[in-house]
Amino acid sequence: MSQLETVMGMATAVFDKYAKTEDNTQTLTKAELKTLLEKELPNFLSTGKDKDAINKVFRNLDENGDFQVDFKEFVIFVAALTCCCHKYFEQKAAK
Amino acid sequence: MSQLETVMGMATAVFDKYAKTEDNTQTLTKAELKTLLEKELPNFLSTGKDKDAINKVFRNLDENGDFQVDFKEFVIFVAALTCCCHKYFEQKAAK
Repeated sequence: MSQLETVMGMATAVFDKYAKTEDNTQTLTKAELKTLLEKELPNFLSTGKDKDAINKVFRNLDENGDFQVDFKEFVIFVAALTCCCHKYFEQKAAK
Repeated sequence: MSQLETVMGMATAVFDKYAKTEDNTQTLTKAELKTLLEKELPNFLSTGKDKDAINKVFRNLDENGDFQVDFKEFVIFVAALTCCCHKYFEQKAAK
């Protein structure tokens, strides 16, 4: 697999890993999303003092309002986050 | 780095690798995008018989019409492609 195919495969694997823990294995519940963010992006929720952060993130991601975050909604979130962190990862790679 | 951070870092590295080969190191020209697709997604252009495919992809990605694909436009493309390939990567992982 090329580097870009690895990126796409790993993104899929991360989603599936957390989505499969509760009933609907094709979507993330709020609890699953919380676990995913805590494990995969440990600084994302903890840096803010906002206790309601997970609720806000979940509401924003759940675009169609079905109380589940589906794969498309998750991938758009990762894309947006990657854009925000572009400079951070460039500097990390340069070290 | 977590798996998801690795995904974000690798996506950034792929873009930078191809963006830096010509003048503007922050964007992909059509030639750079063509090389990226040929190397990173070898089946993406070659499976179609459409000789104009790269022009169509480039026009679609270059959302603001500046004849350059910037990081945001690239990341959205990868996100869309990852959604399309969701089942493919799940099956690959299951093997």
